[in-house]
Amino acid sequence: MELRNEEEILEAKAVDISLKDLSNKLEEFAKARDWEKYHSPRNLLLAMVGEVGELSEIFQWRGEVDKGLPNWKESDKEHLGEELSDVLLYLIRLADICGIDLGDAAARKIIKNAIKYPPKVMF
Amino acid sequence: MELRNEEEILEAKAVDISLKDLSNKLEEFAKARDWEKYHSPRNLLLAMVGEVGELSEIFQWRGEVDKGLPNWKESDKEHLGEELSDVLLYLIRLADICGIDLGDAAARKIIKNAIKYPPKVMF
Amino acid sequence: MELRNEEEILEAKAVDISLKDLSNKLEEFAKARDWEKYHSPRNLLLAMVGEVGELSEIFQWRGEVDKGLPNWKESDKEHLGEELSDVLLYLIRLADICGIDLGDAAARKIIKNAIKYPPKVMF
Amino acid sequence: MELRNEEEILEAKAVDISLKDLSNKLEEFAKARDWEKYHSPRNLLLAMVGEVGELSEIFQWRGEVDKGLPNWKESDKEHLGEELSDVLLYLIRLADICGIDLGDAAARKIIKNAIKYPPKVMF
Repeated sequence: MELRNEEEILEAKAVDISLKDLSNKLEEFAKARDWEKYHSPRNLLLAMVGEVGELSEIFQWRGEVDKGLPNWKESDKEHLGEELSDVLLYLIRLADICGIDLGDAAARKIIKNAIKYPPKVMF
Repeated sequence: MELRNEEEILEAKAVDISLKDLSNKLEEFAKARDWEKYHSPRNLLLAMVGEVGELSEIFQWRGEVDKGLPNWKESDKEHLGEELSDVLLYLIRLADICGIDLGDAAARKIIKNAIKYPPKVMF
Repeated sequence: MELRNEEEILEAKAVDISLKDLSNKLEEFAKARDWEKYHSPRNLLLAMVGEVGELSEIFQWRGEVDKGLPNWKESDKEHLGEELSDVLLYLIRLADICGIDLGDAAARKIIKNAIKYPPKVMF
Repeated sequence: MELRNEEEILEAKAVDISLKDLSNKLEEFAKARDWEKYHSPRNLLLAMVGEVGELSEIFQWRGEVDKGLPNWKESDKEHLGEELSDVLLYLIRLADICGIDLGDAAARKIIKNAIKYPPKVMF
């Protein structure tokens, strides 16, 4: 990704960023840095596990955490957003490198789950 | 999520599914099953770690795996798509429950990375 | 490991099993099954991540859990013991295959931590 | 753990350190720092996941790695020993806090595996 695209990305976000948008950006990003050679499936998987570790570290000594993170410092929330993003970005890149359409797979998985766990009927 | 939405989801996919679409579906899904009470941040994080484990199991005894997964059986690729999706869906749900806009955070993280690792200049 | 060693293992346990005992058993076990060819460092690492996932699943929907696991069913505690063991066994095997003496490394790490985090002085 | 025990630990190592030795050291260590209050099961589990992430980072961009780590720098091997140890130490501490005898559980798990996967018969 080149810096002249910054505006373009923030616009995309404003209009509800898609998995495909992110995937395209990540491909561009890797190409521009000649990093494609490092992006094998198991390298990306281990990189993702590394980021899951960093995400876990944010939560490790806090005991139970309330929804919405009341009382968290703004800087901690920002850090959390970055670690969640790192997991997401490696996950998307891993799917791409494996030739899996992640948006399609996720939509299908929600349907499969809906059949497996039928909603409660409310009278 | 109710079954009458199936068509709606697959349409959304066709037009490039967004993180927000998935987030909305997951919220509906949890509400319809009265599962919101289980969706605390650390519960969701551990559920995600569980799915990362299942994803890793797919790759564990294979040695290095080539891009595009040549020679993988169709059923193994489908299984992979499901495990990648499970990680994604818990990640999105975790971000939501924490009050983090994941699409926004990811777009910002790509920009931050682009500044940290400037692209190679090619002559 | 062959079944005639069962008694030997349980005796070893009785006299406080060592990392080296477990390491030797795991090597025997792999040899007897011709599994050494699968035991490359990254295969073992991913297998361990898989087991960490299974361990996390035990804790995922429980909210905070008290020390000593009061109110857990005996069968759940046994399951937990098995998943903790699976992580341990792959970890020991990974260290061995990498040529790392895990007991030595762990003893050194405790000393390093003790220097990094000096104990509180009590008056 | 107090520094005057350093010699004691290295001796223990020399005579083949046991899981129980490490467990005792970790309990002493936590007590001396008034850290027991942080050592709840899910806190320790997430701390362990954090260390699994750091372990994965060591392997993430290397492609397949050969047994014995030929060509690794001595400092990289030492780093690896530390990260393997961090996973081990949190795992032992987690088992203790849950009231699980990890050495016993591991010995039993090896026996269970031996029954599940009988060794190849060689003629």
